[in-house]
Amino acid sequence: MKYAIILGNLGNTNDRFLSSGYKDQPSKEEMIKRAAAIEGVEGVELVGTWDITPENVEEVGGLLAKHGLKCASIIPDHFAQKRWGSGAFSSKDPAIRAQAVEETAKMAEAALALGCDLISLWPGQDGYDYCFQADYRQERLWIEEGIRSLCRQYPRVRFALEYKPKEPRTHSYLARCGDTLLVAQRIGEPNAGVTIDTGHSFVAGENVAEAAVMLSMYGDKLFHLHFNDNYRFWDDDMIVGSVHFAEYVELLFWLREIGYRGWYSMDQYPYREEAQGALRESVEFLKAIDRLLDQKSIGEIRELVRRGDAVQSTRWLRKRFLS
Amino acid sequence: MKYAIILGNLGNTNDRFLSSGYKDQPSKEEMIKRAAAIEGVEGVELVGTWDITPENVEEVGGLLAKHGLKCASIIPDHFAQKRWGSGAFSSKDPAIRAQAVEETAKMAEAALALGCDLISLWPGQDGYDYCFQADYRQERLWIEEGIRSLCRQYPRVRFALEYKPKEPRTHSYLARCGDTLLVAQRIGEPNAGVTIDTGHSFVAGENVAEAAVMLSMYGDKLFHLHFNDNYRFWDDDMIVGSVHFAEYVELLFWLREIGYRGWYSMDQYPYREEAQGALRESVEFLKAIDRLLDQKSIGEIRELVRRGDAVQSTRWLRKRFLS
Amino acid sequence: MKYAIILGNLGNTNDRFLSSGYKDQPSKEEMIKRAAAIEGVEGVELVGTWDITPENVEEVGGLLAKHGLKCASIIPDHFAQKRWGSGAFSSKDPAIRAQAVEETAKMAEAALALGCDLISLWPGQDGYDYCFQADYRQERLWIEEGIRSLCRQYPRVRFALEYKPKEPRTHSYLARCGDTLLVAQRIGEPNAGVTIDTGHSFVAGENVAEAAVMLSMYGDKLFHLHFNDNYRFWDDDMIVGSVHFAEYVELLFWLREIGYRGWYSMDQYPYREEAQGALRESVEFLKAIDRLLDQKSIGEIRELVRRGDAVQSTRWLRKRFLS
Amino acid sequence: MKYAIILGNLGNTNDRFLSSGYKDQPSKEEMIKRAAAIEGVEGVELVGTWDITPENVEEVGGLLAKHGLKCASIIPDHFAQKRWGSGAFSSKDPAIRAQAVEETAKMAEAALALGCDLISLWPGQDGYDYCFQADYRQERLWIEEGIRSLCRQYPRVRFALEYKPKEPRTHSYLARCGDTLLVAQRIGEPNAGVTIDTGHSFVAGENVAEAAVMLSMYGDKLFHLHFNDNYRFWDDDMIVGSVHFAEYVELLFWLREIGYRGWYSMDQYPYREEAQGALRESVEFLKAIDRLLDQKSIGEIRELVRRGDAVQSTRWLRKRFLS
Repeated sequence: MKYAIILGNLGNTNDRFLSSGYKDQPSKEEMIKRAAAIEGVEGVELVGTWDITPENVEEVGGLLAKHGLKCASIIPDHFAQKRWGSGAFSSKDPAIRAQAVEETAKMAEAALALGCDLISLWPGQDGYDYCFQADYRQERLWIEEGIRSLCRQYPRVRFALEYKPKEPRTHSYLARCGDTLLVAQRIGEPNAGVTIDTGHSFVAGENVAEAAVMLSMYGDKLFHLHFNDNYRFWDDDMIVGSVHFAEYVELLFWLREIGYRGWYSMDQYPYREEAQGALRESVEFLKAIDRLLDQKSIGEIRELVRRGDAVQSTRWLRKRFLS
Repeated sequence: MKYAIILGNLGNTNDRFLSSGYKDQPSKEEMIKRAAAIEGVEGVELVGTWDITPENVEEVGGLLAKHGLKCASIIPDHFAQKRWGSGAFSSKDPAIRAQAVEETAKMAEAALALGCDLISLWPGQDGYDYCFQADYRQERLWIEEGIRSLCRQYPRVRFALEYKPKEPRTHSYLARCGDTLLVAQRIGEPNAGVTIDTGHSFVAGENVAEAAVMLSMYGDKLFHLHFNDNYRFWDDDMIVGSVHFAEYVELLFWLREIGYRGWYSMDQYPYREEAQGALRESVEFLKAIDRLLDQKSIGEIRELVRRGDAVQSTRWLRKRFLS
Repeated sequence: MKYAIILGNLGNTNDRFLSSGYKDQPSKEEMIKRAAAIEGVEGVELVGTWDITPENVEEVGGLLAKHGLKCASIIPDHFAQKRWGSGAFSSKDPAIRAQAVEETAKMAEAALALGCDLISLWPGQDGYDYCFQADYRQERLWIEEGIRSLCRQYPRVRFALEYKPKEPRTHSYLARCGDTLLVAQRIGEPNAGVTIDTGHSFVAGENVAEAAVMLSMYGDKLFHLHFNDNYRFWDDDMIVGSVHFAEYVELLFWLREIGYRGWYSMDQYPYREEAQGALRESVEFLKAIDRLLDQKSIGEIRELVRRGDAVQSTRWLRKRFLS
Repeated sequence: MKYAIILGNLGNTNDRFLSSGYKDQPSKEEMIKRAAAIEGVEGVELVGTWDITPENVEEVGGLLAKHGLKCASIIPDHFAQKRWGSGAFSSKDPAIRAQAVEETAKMAEAALALGCDLISLWPGQDGYDYCFQADYRQERLWIEEGIRSLCRQYPRVRFALEYKPKEPRTHSYLARCGDTLLVAQRIGEPNAGVTIDTGHSFVAGENVAEAAVMLSMYGDKLFHLHFNDNYRFWDDDMIVGSVHFAEYVELLFWLREIGYRGWYSMDQYPYREEAQGALRESVEFLKAIDRLLDQKSIGEIRELVRRGDAVQSTRWLRKRFLS
């Protein structure tokens, strides 16, 4: 298991009530240093605008090398500038749609320059808030077209579409596992896939392990994974394992079964918590599960899911993990 | 707009606390008579076991003819017998899986005998309740295989898969629009499609109009529609329009845009209400919207969704409907 | 910790789709025998109509004695007969309201006859489904009046009001901890209190430990506890610990802090599970937590909640329980 | 009906992804001017720090007078500064708790200076995010103590506690109607009451009309009202009537029945909408309902809630409003 974190998780945090933030903003090198100091973390994800721009690729690459970290992915910025406010790939303004593609292309170049082949694409503003506000047919086509053109332009880069049911829009176009896989399929290129964020999947009402299996069996489309926890109603972006437990064990089991070889990347938003500790805690939680999921356990779980007896499954979980 | 109702909506209702029911059970003819007496209703949907069996096809056909109703669809029973309790198409028991297919085949025959080409398939027990209870990969394949075999055996019958996120299982396999469309696509036959139940779509967190558009644009797969209302957390199966309003107007607009020609069928569960009145009220609500959605309104909405200004959209809705 | 179960959990289970049930119904003695065989279980809760009537009190008492079980509480039936369908204590029909009180009085007599002083009152039909259907002011008063009269008539019996946000109505009058405590306060008798059902509290969006603390600090009103688990959107009545973990540990900590001395009673609905195993598993889960919550742990948690550092709290939980 | 708006609704909007905001920030006078230009709006609510400080009371008072607006309430800032990040009235730091009281006292002075007797208190940071993070007993006491001292210090000012289940914390202390009323009661002063925000009430799973009735009948504690709409899972702060309809009609009916004489104040967050238009649209929606709720309608609704027949209630609503 290769662990990563999203670099910005170590920075300042804000919300709509406290826009200047709950914390202070450390320097980029300080954040990279703190990331590298989390035992087990080998990579970081960089967010466009916030962490990486076409201008600072070399500088960031140098800092990563200095601290022994890989670039796990780049998340282009399609959400943190006023121009994306009413959509990026699905904007009603053709100039904005073109900029969304262009911005992504720059980040694909940056990724390649950093020896990374993964773009995790989260077009968070592509959605709508009210009824009678969106031309669903046209706007879904625009999203497909924009991303398809990127997949063709950068065949060596994998574009992983990250779904989330809502926020910042009340409805996102890439909302759930199934509909996002449909978009990836319609793009029709082998380098279009999906990112599962565990918290987004909880909010979508999904069983996250089933989502991973679906992506695997319907075209090997699970490209990337973000980990965090929440109370199922909102993307609280909490420490992994602070709310859920069984779901993560089951997910880790199925990730082995489907042969997932990508990153296990932490994506939290520690509004008020000391960030390095919050991220370390998530990694340690996953490591603890991983330790207990030995070959014997894997065999036992296979038998449990084959039998489907919930009493036995629950008992196994308790006996293996809680004692 | 062709209106229908599910016949059983006129019968007794029960829940897990009051299993003998809140009402008395009228005779089949009495229910058919009451259905026919709802102004505008031209068809009924029949549920297997409850309303129709291989043995009573002729009798039911006679009653429908007598009262001037068409069979809008048959919903085979995969939920109301003990044998389906742990799944029908995805049962771990191959004999049960075979029975699920066989039961559906009998209902396809019954439909054809009644001059109906639509099976609305709701495999409600096909899902799981607990973590480590299901082999998602294997069970999803079984569902595809079973339904594919039916589509091939009955090419003149359309099989519309009805999705619902939960109940009676905590997680259904056919849970949301996107994942159900994926199953329909993998079945790979032109007569595999999807039923949208507006209430199930609300519970899934979807915008139901967008769901309809997705099914249309990704392969013309919107085969059937069930109408009811709820508070978004559970399938309350209430009178249409008792909770939501704008969503239904938007849905009716988009159904015209995508050229939907199927039934508008009421699927309620009037636990404590006089059933005929509850169903009539839903039909009257949809008719009232339909009346106001004239050609001029359609043109205005097209312009609204092209512009995407939520203030104008909301104002239009208020001025057109509330005055 | 005194463990109990609701006797009917060991019986047949049904839902609105399968009203004849997923299982067979064992005899009363068989259920009592199975309850007694769950290690640690000392008491059972009896449901009116289903388990206990004025006529069979002696017989049931004999069976309990024979199998070494106490009557932990009686739950009068205000939900499982047609007459309660539109409300019991809040029915618009004065005759039904009188019957609701009378039925409860009979069960208070039965409880006293069985050496039990606890009535867990769940008026599940007292609520409403639609807007413009209820006179909130009048109906809330009727509920207060009915229960107040019972509290005065049976001063030696404690009446614990069980809240639940919804089901079987879309809105219950006794919906959440705070509003139910308000009703208990307005009743104005020392023997009116509250039952927390952990699953109902999850559905209400509450932190269940905070709910317990509120009841304790606002008048020592936590009279009784039901345990089960769910996915937060609906009362799934699952095995304790199958979804949540931290919440139960926190609850058990706070129950000690507030000096709770009542029952820890399992209230599940094992639709498809072997019931005895499902209940045993819940008890074993709570016992496992209880074992680890030793005096040292209690001291550590006190310090954690005093400091409020979520990283340290989460780390403590992981280190103490997951290894 | 006296309409007001929260002044800041006309300003810039941001979220955690776009902290610099979706819009530009107009000047204070410009915002006041725009508020005054919404037909029917007679007052504005001012937020501490953002709109009003001890230093600018006179200036703001002058601007309001110039544009013919009253100060409807002041909402002291307990959420928009770093120091409140881990709680204001319930902070574990006694200095912060003292500042929370002091800040409120200054705003009570400002209100009196502006001829206003209402403080709408929303202690949004008073809550917790994780299990084992809060001393529920102690922290609830601190909240009561702080607000009680304010109520006693300013007997001519009414302190209306605004509840909200979550955001910015995953759990708020003032979360739902019932628990907030309990806090108001424990404060024990006649000038402690409650603010209902319709959207917060939807998120809490409440029927908002029932919440208003509860506050009225349990001590005449409905002091203030905020209006907005959402999809029930999150505080989307949308245009009133864009999602719900029947709930607002029912609320307006019951507000008359209980004799509510306070403000009808709009509290929206028009992230991407032209703000003045979004607020005007809400006011116009409420006015349209108000026009149709004539004396005859009031009488008819009284009869409907007395009878409780959902079919008749729904029919009445359709016939009265949709035609």
